[in-house]
Parts: sequence; structure tokens; C-alpha cells
Amino acid sequence: MHIRLINPNTTTAMTQLIGRSASRVAGEGVTVDAVNPSMGPASIESHYEEALAVPGLLEQIALGNADGVDGFAIACFGDPGLDAARELSDGPVLGIAEAAFHAASMVGRRFSVMTTLSRTRGRAQELMDRYGFAHQCAGIHACDIPVLELETLGEDGIYAIAKACREAIERDDSDAVVLGCAGMADFCPQISQVVGVPVIDGVVAATGMLQGLIRMGVTTSRRGEYAAPPVKAMTGALAQFEIR
Amino acid sequence: MHIRLINPNTTTAMTQLIGRSASRVAGEGVTVDAVNPSMGPASIESHYEEALAVPGLLEQIALGNADGVDGFAIACFGDPGLDAARELSDGPVLGIAEAAFHAASMVGRRFSVMTTLSRTRGRAQELMDRYGFAHQCAGIHACDIPVLELETLGEDGIYAIAKACREAIERDDSDAVVLGCAGMADFCPQISQVVGVPVIDGVVAATGMLQGLIRMGVTTSRRGEYAAPPVKAMTGALAQFEIR
Amino acid sequence: MHIRLINPNTTTAMTQLIGRSASRVAGEGVTVDAVNPSMGPASIESHYEEALAVPGLLEQIALGNADGVDGFAIACFGDPGLDAARELSDGPVLGIAEAAFHAASMVGRRFSVMTTLSRTRGRAQELMDRYGFAHQCAGIHACDIPVLELETLGEDGIYAIAKACREAIERDDSDAVVLGCAGMADFCPQISQVVGVPVIDGVVAATGMLQGLIRMGVTTSRRGEYAAPPVKAMTGALAQFEIR
Amino acid sequence: MHIRLINPNTTTAMTQLIGRSASRVAGEGVTVDAVNPSMGPASIESHYEEALAVPGLLEQIALGNADGVDGFAIACFGDPGLDAARELSDGPVLGIAEAAFHAASMVGRRFSVMTTLSRTRGRAQELMDRYGFAHQCAGIHACDIPVLELETLGEDGIYAIAKACREAIERDDSDAVVLGCAGMADFCPQISQVVGVPVIDGVVAATGMLQGLIRMGVTTSRRGEYAAPPVKAMTGALAQFEIR
Amino acid sequence: MHIRLINPNTTTAMTQLIGRSASRVAGEGVTVDAVNPSMGPASIESHYEEALAVPGLLEQIALGNADGVDGFAIACFGDPGLDAARELSDGPVLGIAEAAFHAASMVGRRFSVMTTLSRTRGRAQELMDRYGFAHQCAGIHACDIPVLELETLGEDGIYAIAKACREAIERDDSDAVVLGCAGMADFCPQISQVVGVPVIDGVVAATGMLQGLIRMGVTTSRRGEYAAPPVKAMTGALAQFEIR
Amino acid sequence: MHIRLINPNTTTAMTQLIGRSASRVAGEGVTVDAVNPSMGPASIESHYEEALAVPGLLEQIALGNADGVDGFAIACFGDPGLDAARELSDGPVLGIAEAAFHAASMVGRRFSVMTTLSRTRGRAQELMDRYGFAHQCAGIHACDIPVLELETLGEDGIYAIAKACREAIERDDSDAVVLGCAGMADFCPQISQVVGVPVIDGVVAATGMLQGLIRMGVTTSRRGEYAAPPVKAMTGALAQFEIR
Repeated sequence: MHIRLINPNTTTAMTQLIGRSASRVAGEGVTVDAVNPSMGPASIESHYEEALAVPGLLEQIALGNADGVDGFAIACFGDPGLDAARELSDGPVLGIAEAAFHAASMVGRRFSVMTTLSRTRGRAQELMDRYGFAHQCAGIHACDIPVLELETLGEDGIYAIAKACREAIERDDSDAVVLGCAGMADFCPQISQVVGVPVIDGVVAATGMLQGLIRMGVTTSRRGEYAAPPVKAMTGALAQFEIR
Repeated sequence: MHIRLINPNTTTAMTQLIGRSASRVAGEGVTVDAVNPSMGPASIESHYEEALAVPGLLEQIALGNADGVDGFAIACFGDPGLDAARELSDGPVLGIAEAAFHAASMVGRRFSVMTTLSRTRGRAQELMDRYGFAHQCAGIHACDIPVLELETLGEDGIYAIAKACREAIERDDSDAVVLGCAGMADFCPQISQVVGVPVIDGVVAATGMLQGLIRMGVTTSRRGEYAAPPVKAMTGALAQFEIR
Repeated sequence: MHIRLINPNTTTAMTQLIGRSASRVAGEGVTVDAVNPSMGPASIESHYEEALAVPGLLEQIALGNADGVDGFAIACFGDPGLDAARELSDGPVLGIAEAAFHAASMVGRRFSVMTTLSRTRGRAQELMDRYGFAHQCAGIHACDIPVLELETLGEDGIYAIAKACREAIERDDSDAVVLGCAGMADFCPQISQVVGVPVIDGVVAATGMLQGLIRMGVTTSRRGEYAAPPVKAMTGALAQFEIR
Repeated sequence: MHIRLINPNTTTAMTQLIGRSASRVAGEGVTVDAVNPSMGPASIESHYEEALAVPGLLEQIALGNADGVDGFAIACFGDPGLDAARELSDGPVLGIAEAAFHAASMVGRRFSVMTTLSRTRGRAQELMDRYGFAHQCAGIHACDIPVLELETLGEDGIYAIAKACREAIERDDSDAVVLGCAGMADFCPQISQVVGVPVIDGVVAATGMLQGLIRMGVTTSRRGEYAAPPVKAMTGALAQFEIR
Repeated sequence: MHIRLINPNTTTAMTQLIGRSASRVAGEGVTVDAVNPSMGPASIESHYEEALAVPGLLEQIALGNADGVDGFAIACFGDPGLDAARELSDGPVLGIAEAAFHAASMVGRRFSVMTTLSRTRGRAQELMDRYGFAHQCAGIHACDIPVLELETLGEDGIYAIAKACREAIERDDSDAVVLGCAGMADFCPQISQVVGVPVIDGVVAATGMLQGLIRMGVTTSRRGEYAAPPVKAMTGALAQFEIR
Repeated sequence: MHIRLINPNTTTAMTQLIGRSASRVAGEGVTVDAVNPSMGPASIESHYEEALAVPGLLEQIALGNADGVDGFAIACFGDPGLDAARELSDGPVLGIAEAAFHAASMVGRRFSVMTTLSRTRGRAQELMDRYGFAHQCAGIHACDIPVLELETLGEDGIYAIAKACREAIERDDSDAVVLGCAGMADFCPQISQVVGVPVIDGVVAATGMLQGLIRMGVTTSRRGEYAAPPVKAMTGALAQFEIR
């Protein structure tokens, strides 16, 4: 079984971190790797950047199909391009926000979310509503650390996030906490020790759940909405995405 | 006052039709024009195409800002890139699905929607939920005519859509009908005659409502989520979108 | 085009204020006037008063129809008698709470509301739920200033409301604020300066949106629920409302 | 204990019928009577008529308070003026739609509603949403018999309604049926025999539940929203409603 | 009329208290008694205990049917076994949480809930959602007094609960308060004096509403879901529950 | 890793079938077994039977804890006793309805459900609402084959279920179908061939997802609601369940 994580930004250090985190939950005989696009933003902290990350993400889905990948995770907490990726991919596709919300809903009644910048909370709320977890979400919070600073965050920085998580859990009276950025995937063990409740990272959640879906032998339905994209002319800087 | 309609696909005939329709609801002293991107898909009938239409749409928002445009409408019924456009645009931005749903909710308790291809109904439902009109939406239907065939549809074709609308209204027991494609903007008068209830097209609805917002002197809030996108490196085929 | 604002209370000073505010967003060639009933309460701050304001409101709709008015706004934040007015009116009818919620939802993800007396917040919540904006409403607050004191509120009083708005936005973490009384229509510019986010007043929002609906050529659906009220005997103090 | 049913229309034959139906569920020592206003419409089949029935209803609440009535039911399926009546009344007030929905939710998972004219279904849906029973409502149907014809409906007419109820239950796959008009209160036993599921009439439901509330010693909360209406000038044809 | 309250735990002192409280709202000619099972937990403060209380509850429903009981209340705030009891019982069955929520929704727009242990709030929220009162519930709070200590709580203890209720009402800005444990049924009068809003106890609410349902002549629908449980083998420690 | 499926009814043939189905999705090094209680009903087709299956289920959770089981699935589509099991179990617990809904939501926008007896659909709807998938559920249908007849169903019977699934998908216009009984776990491959969309069985879905949760190192939160059940006296036929 071959699972591929796509980091939709172009920062390779973050891609490597995502690959390492995901590998920790791979079963025997499961290959897990991580890639990133050749185009687009260095990190994703606005709707504008999210939108411009999607073409590169779709390029990677097409490449992954050619490599015989069995399932993909989109390793950005805004789940950018998820519907488009599902149309294009041969195997199942999960967003890491999606996967994290599912996992969190299985270990308690209500969970809190800790994202990076405050401005990203709106998107997290929109995904919460779309996936149906609004009644289980006790609060969406931000630690206001930019995505690319997470890589070089020392012990003190991680402890600061952990403390913010603990306060969120107390204020929200919740059972679990979801980490709202692929760049936080490595912090789970340390944060868990501080907060004393399940800490859910979407990178490992998606990797775990994709193995389940692939073993079940199911992929995205091809009936109607998620059928392969139609043949269509595509011009200009995006001509490479034309489906023939 | 200058309102610009952005057709996010690259088919100029459709852009011209959108401009003509929108002009009909311009008040005195209001300039309305329509443009389309230099890149992307010829029409939008899948999530994949919608995602790839967004960069070209954002290019047009940036150009419109430079032209001193007062407000934008995104003239595709999937409201592609709406959040990103709001971050980037100086003036207010409305999607035509959004505008149509708002208008329809003001002329009755429940409305039906008639889109083009069946596969686009999922996106319409998602927008309905996001904007808060699910309780007023009595049904989402498809006439299964491809977007680019709408341009050359004769009287018989328009009558066929009108009949489908009438049947939808009966089955859904609704008060109004929303036309779910910018390419149908011209058909309102003919369909109205057949169905006997208000027929709402999003192109004219967005043009009408934007005039209201601009006269009110309001634009997208810059507090938090919709602040201007941050300065960020952008590479590869999308390097032109870098914010400096 | 002729748009009429109906102040459903009998205080003519407030009617004049409403007319002045609405006129500011009238396009060229658009006539805007404001009227109030000959019967009913001096101001509306309870369900009881709201109910007793409706007959006078309906009297004004009938008079407006006779005057050839193209569309009506109900200039009280409880949107009293909206459904009945829609049955009776020849043109479209908007409530100012309705119009304000629609406009606020177009300039951000979440908005706060600032009403007059605390006891009116329940009605605002009910309207929020009915119109479908509960997921975008971040909080409903009261400044506890009676409606008729708004007219004579000096700079200090307006600043006190502005400060309450700013605190509400911080506490609710919202993008915009809706002023919850027609008597606050004049305060928008001053409050905007203090709060730094879009400030939405329903009087101007309704006036702006009605122009859009009228240009679109749509009015309330006559299919079923909102058909003209049936011929029916009406007796006693309300005999003048009989439909023959 | 003294319970009063207020028929908000002016048709005394219907008032008498309502009184008779309600009396059947009065416990020992419970006085039940029925009244109607001196002003307003002969029957209520539109929003316009409903709005104009409310002043007369409020007049009867004030009279009932003076008579020492312990609790009121508003005997029209649109629950007109419920909030205003709660502010004014000394004892608890229930609408018959409200009471019927509560009772129906207690005898099964999902219920159907059978109203009179089709145009009244919108209001029933709005009440369903407000009271929180939308997830238990399987369908709202109309038999399209005018309210005042219900009085003189013979066996055949009642059987026609019963058949329509039975079909609704089958189509909706529901557990119970609510009769959506005070004028149907007498038909429960006959319709029950035909449909084989619980048949809920709001007149008896409200009378039953009011006895419960009164025995519990609770009435409408006076904290905030439902405090007594404030002292306020009231002019013109409605001057009699002034609170001094 | 014979109404029976079933205390699903095995503590007879609490059963007696429940019977006394319920008797206070019995009309003339209405017999009210209270029983408890021969098996199961001494009190119910976890999902585990709730699940294990249900067999004993069902034993009591079967015994009550044999005694000709006309309707049952399940006197534990988690409403354990309600659906199963409805299948088995000849007469209507109400849970006390269910009854309390219904009653509270009739005396104001929003109510607060005060339960015993914090860990029981999740179940209260789940019931709130199921019955459709989430939009009227302003907050669910705990006083963290174990169920069996309520019996011996002196004046000071009751006053502490009353103070917690008053604080909850202020914080939640609610109109009424629901007491979330059958063991609090006796405290209504004292708490009412402190809080100044309607105080709803489910034991008396259920007893009051059951009288209404029984007078209406309705019981649980036997169509489909709530038909009598099928004949089925039942083995081991639960063999006594076999339906033959 | 050791995963245990608990069939909450006492029919061992069904237990064996569940074990076989689950084993098919076990990764290398994962032990999967299936057990059933010593007490309770032979099959679960009513709320009564579901309630009486829970003690036996909890007995098996306690035994599984002693065996060092890493995670449990409750293999009955009503997810009986899920909350109580989560309190008691050392590892994570999933219900098969829960797991199936999660998986189905990952492969399309809307899914249909095919259960056994019609009377069980109410419980499926309740779970759908609780878990947050109501907006993705397009319909809940029944094939009206009793649970214990599924074991001996021949090719024709399976084809009949497959045809019912296909019709449900067409009528509901859905993307996937969920099989609503552990006894159908074996039918996935055959039904998939007929319907042409993903067919989700909860037994394999739960087995797949539990592996993911266990690899992630998370289990049910012990903060508050799902802490271990308190020490409490337990009497009579259920005395064996006492926690000391």
C-alpha cells in the first residue's frame, strides 16, 4: 500500500517533517511519502494563498496517479482543493482538517481546535460546518505563530502552544484538542503530556484513516459529482492542466 | 460608480452576454463592464475546472483594483474564489449564486434552483448551506445542458429549460426559481412568462445588490480574516501572483 | 422609481430622520420618502407594541399601493408585519433587520448586532434564525437606550454606543456590526470611525437592496402563500381593513 | 382553576365548538371557557388576517386577566400574537400549534400536519422551526377546505380529511398526525379510527398542557423579554390599547 | 387516572421523595405513585450506570402495565431507556428531562439547566439536541453535588444550588432554569424565591404533562418504530425479559 | 495490535461471520477476533432488545480489557451502549453505524442507508443526527429482512438487497450506500457489483478506523464525561456489574 501526503505549499523542510510524522503511523508493508508542488506560495495563511496552492496540489495528484499511489492526504489544515483532488485522484483523498475532526469526534463529545494565525479560524469554522462537526466543536483558537516559524520553534515555543491548548480545553470544557496546522504534527507527544487529553494531529489522523479506507477497498464515488473532470480547453499559464 | 463582472472562464462570447445582462439593471451614472481571465478553463462544470479558474479570476481582481473598480461580481454559479477575491479587492465582491440566493429569499419563503449539469448540484448545495439558505431551498435541479451550449440555445431550448423550471416549482412547491448559471442570464424574461413566479438570475441580482452596497459605502471588513493577503514568496507558473 | 420607508411607530420626528438617512443612498432618478401610521404606539420596544404597530403599517402599505410606490421598507428592527405586508403590497417589501443581516453577511464572515433595549434581543434572535443568519451572527447586544431618546442623543451618547459596538466586536471576534434600530440610522459615519469595521444600518441597507430588486423587475411571488389576502369580513375597530 | 380559550377570529359558532372540544379534557374542578374578540377578521387564512386578529386577541387577554383567568390558549393554528400575549397575560399562554407539536413529539419520532388551505403551510413551517420540531416534522399538508366550511362539514367531508391524513402518514412514513386548525378539534375521534395512529388536535393539547403548567405553579418569566409591556402612548383607532 | 413515576435507581428514599413531589401536581381523582427496580445501580451518574438501570426500569414498566397504570414518567434526568419503555408500555411515557425541557420552552425564550455532577452534562446536551431544544438552551451547568447527597442536603446546601442557578441565569441571560435531577424535585419553591424566574423540575413537569396526554386519550404510536417488541429468545442473567 | 469486535446479540453464527469479515481488513500483525455476550437477546430489532443487549456488551468490554484488547467495535448498527462502553474500555471504541457514516462521508457528498427492518430506521436517524451526518444522509431505507435470516440468505436474497440499494441510490441521488446491519458485512463485494458506487459496511469500516486510532496512540478522553464509572453499589440480577 502506498500513501502520499501532499504539502500544498512549496517549503520542502515542512514537506519532510510531514513525511516523518506520517511514517510513524504506517503499518507494516505500508509506504508513506510526502511531496510538494513546483508552483505556488511558500506557506498558506490566507484565502488568497490557499487558492493559489491548489493548481500545484492538483499537479501532484496527477503525478501520484501515474506513480500508482493508493491514497492521498492534503497536508494543509484548510483542506485546499479537496473536491477537485477527489475528482482527479484514482484513490481516496482526505484533508488533514477533515481527518482530524473525524478522529477527534471518536474520542470524546467535544473538542477544541488550536490553529496558527487568527485569520485562519474562519476557514476552520467553514470546514467544521461542511463536515458536520459544528456541534462537537467547542472552540477554535489561534496561537498566532506563523506557519513557517513552527519549524524552528524550540521547547519554549512548543510549551507555549501546549499551554494555550490547556487553557482552551478549560475554557471550552472540551475532551480533546485538534492541532490546526500540518507544521504542528511533530508536537503531539509533548503537548499531550501538558494537556492530559487526546491531542489530534491531522497528518497522522489522515494517514491512519486512509489505510482503513484502502483496506476496505473503497475510493471516491464516480457517480455524478465526483466523476473524472471532463475534457476541456485550458489556456494561458495553466495550459498544462488541460484534460485531453 | 463602476461595477465589474468577472466571468471566470475564458470564453469571451459568454463574457459579452454577462456584460449585456448586467447592464440592464445599472442605474443612471453606473458603469458596468465584464471581463474574463487570460488563463484557465473554457467553462466550469467540475470542481477541477472551478479550482483552475481561480488564479485567472484573482488576476482580474488585481487589474480591476488598478482600474478603480468600485465592486466586483464573480459571474459563475459556483462562486469560485470568493473568499480570496474579498481579501484582494478594494471594493465589495459578490458571487452570483450568493446574490441570487439572497434575492430569492426576499420574494418568497422557498425557492427552487435550476442548474446546468447534474454534477454541479453538490456545489450549489454546499453554497446554500454556507450562506444559510438551506431552509429556504426547496430543491436543486439540473437541465443537463452544458454551459457552452447555452449561448447557441434557440427558442426551443429555452422553452425546455422553462418547462423544467415549472415542473421543479410544482414538485418542490416553491415560490420562486433561481437560474444556476451565468449563461442563463438572458433567459429570465422568457422563463418568467412560462413559470409565473419570480425568476432570479444571479448576474443581475449581484449587479443590483452591489450598487446597494457601494451606495451604502461599505466594503469587505479588513478586521482579521479578510485583511489583505500577507507578503509571501510565490514560485513557478504562479510567480506572477506574488504579493510584495 | 419610488421607494417608501414606513416607520411603523407614530413619532414623526423619527419618520423624518428615517427619510433623510434613506435618501442618502438613493440613486439618480430614485424618489425616496418616509411615512408613519395614523394609529398605534409611539415607539416599539415590546412584542405588545410591535403587534399593535402592524395595523397602521398595513394601512400605509395600502396607501402606498394607491400612490404607485415601487417598493417598501419596514423601518423597525423587529420587521413587524413583514409577511402581511408582502401579501398586500404591489412591490417588494423588505424589513430593515432583514436587509441589514443580508448586507452584513456580504462584508465578512460574522457580525455583531447592537440593539436598543435588552428586551428586544429575543426578537432579533428569532429573525436571525428565520432568515438563516444564525451561523453568521456572533452576538446580539443592547445599549439600553430607549428608542425615543436616540433622537436627542448628543455626541457623548453616540460615542457611548460606538464604544459598546467596539467592545462587542472584540468580545464576539466579529467582522462587522449591525445597528439594531431605525433610530440609529444617522449614527453610521460616527460609529464607523470608532469601530474600524463595516457598520450596517438597516434603513440604508433596505433602501439600497430595494433599488436592486426593483431594477431586476421582481416582486413577491404570488404563488400560494403570498397571494393577495382573500375577501373577508372584518369588524369592529378594524373594519376599515376589510378586503372587498 | 380557570382556563380560557381565545378564538382570535370573530365567528362565534367556531368559538363555541372550541369551548366544547376543550371542555372534554378538563379535569375535575377545572373551568374551561372560550371567547372571541369584538374586532378583526371572520377567519384567519392569510398573514394579513392573522396580523389583524392580534389586537382583538390582546383585548381578550386583558379582559381575561381582569376575570382572574389562570391560563390562556390561542385557538388558531398560526399562534397569532403569542409573544405579545405572554407579555400581557398574568398566567401562562400556549398557542394550539405549539401545544400540538409538543404533544405529537411525545408519542412518536415523526409526525405529519394536515392544515386547511395550502397557503397556510408556510406559517406552520415557520412555527415548526421556531419551536424546534423541524426534525420531527415529516410533512405539512393541506386539505384545501376553507376554515369556515369546517363547521358545516358532514361525515363525507370529515372522511375526506381522514383519508388525506392517512395518505400523508403513508407518504411521510410518520407516527402521528396533527390537525392544523382549531375548527378540526371535533374530528379527532373519527379521524383516529381511519388513520390508526395518534391524532393530535391543538385545542385539547393546549388545554391539557395548560393544566399541567398551572398545577406546577409556573407562568411566563418576567425577566427581560417577557416583562409587562412598558407604559407608552397609543393613538388613533388603537388608542384603547394604551398602557398607562 | 393512575400515573406512575419510575425511579430507575434502587434507592428507595429517593423514590419516596419523587412520589411526594409528583403528588403535589396531581389533579382530583388522579392517583400518583412511585416505584424503583429490584436490580441495578444505587444512583445514576455515568453512562455505565444509566445503561445498567434500564433493565430494572423495563421490569417496572411491565409490572405497571399489569397494574393498569395509565402513563409512566422515568424519573432520572438522563431519560434512560425511554424508547424501549415506549415500545413496552401500554400508556404514554415521558422522561423527566424531556418534560422539563418542554415546560421550560413554554415560559420563556431561553432556559438554563443545573445538573448534579459535571460529567452528566454531555448526556443533557445530547437529549437537548434530540428533543429539539438546543436553540432554547442557554447553558448546562453542574453544582457538583452527588445525587445521593441531595437527600440530606440542608438549607445551606439548597441555598448554594439556588445561588448557582442565579449565577447561571445571569451569565446565560436566560428566562428560566431547569433542575437536572429527580433528587432536586423538592427544592423548587426555595430556589424560585432566590432566582426570581420560573424554576422547572422534571418530576412535576412530567406528572403534569402526562395528565394532559392521558386526558387527550393518546399514547405512543404503534405504527412502525414503537410497535410492541417482537417475540425473541433472551438468555442468561436477563432471561426474565424474554417476550413470548 | 489486538482489535475485538463485540456482537451484542447472543447468536454465535453471526459472531463468526463478523469475525471473518473484520479479518479481511486487518493489516499485518493485527489480531482481530469477535465475541458475543452470555446474556441478552438473540438479535436486535427493537429499542427493547437493544437496551437489553447492553449489559452483555459491557460484560465483554470488561473481559476484553482483562485480555489486553487495544480497541473495540460494537457490531450492531444501533451502536448500543457506545457511551457506557467508552467509559469502561481501556482502548478506543467505535460503533459500526458510526464508523460506516464516517467512511461514507469520505467518499462522496451524500449517501443512502439500507437497514433490515423498517422499525429500525428511527434509531439510524437518531445516530445520524448525533454524529453530525444528517446533511450527508440522502435517505434511510429498509429491506425488511429480519437480522437472523441474513445468515442463510442465498444469492437471490443478496441480489434483492442489492437491487433495493440501487433503487435507493437512484431515488436519493446519492454517491454511496451504507449497509445497516452487521449481518450484511459479507455482502459488500456482491452488492458493489450491482450498484456501481462505494458500498460501506460498518464492520470493516470500524476495524479499519480502529487500526488508525490505535496507531495514532489515542483513546477515549478521560476528562470529565468519559472518566471511568464511579464506584457504586449494584444489586439484584445485575450485581455482577458492580464497580468496586
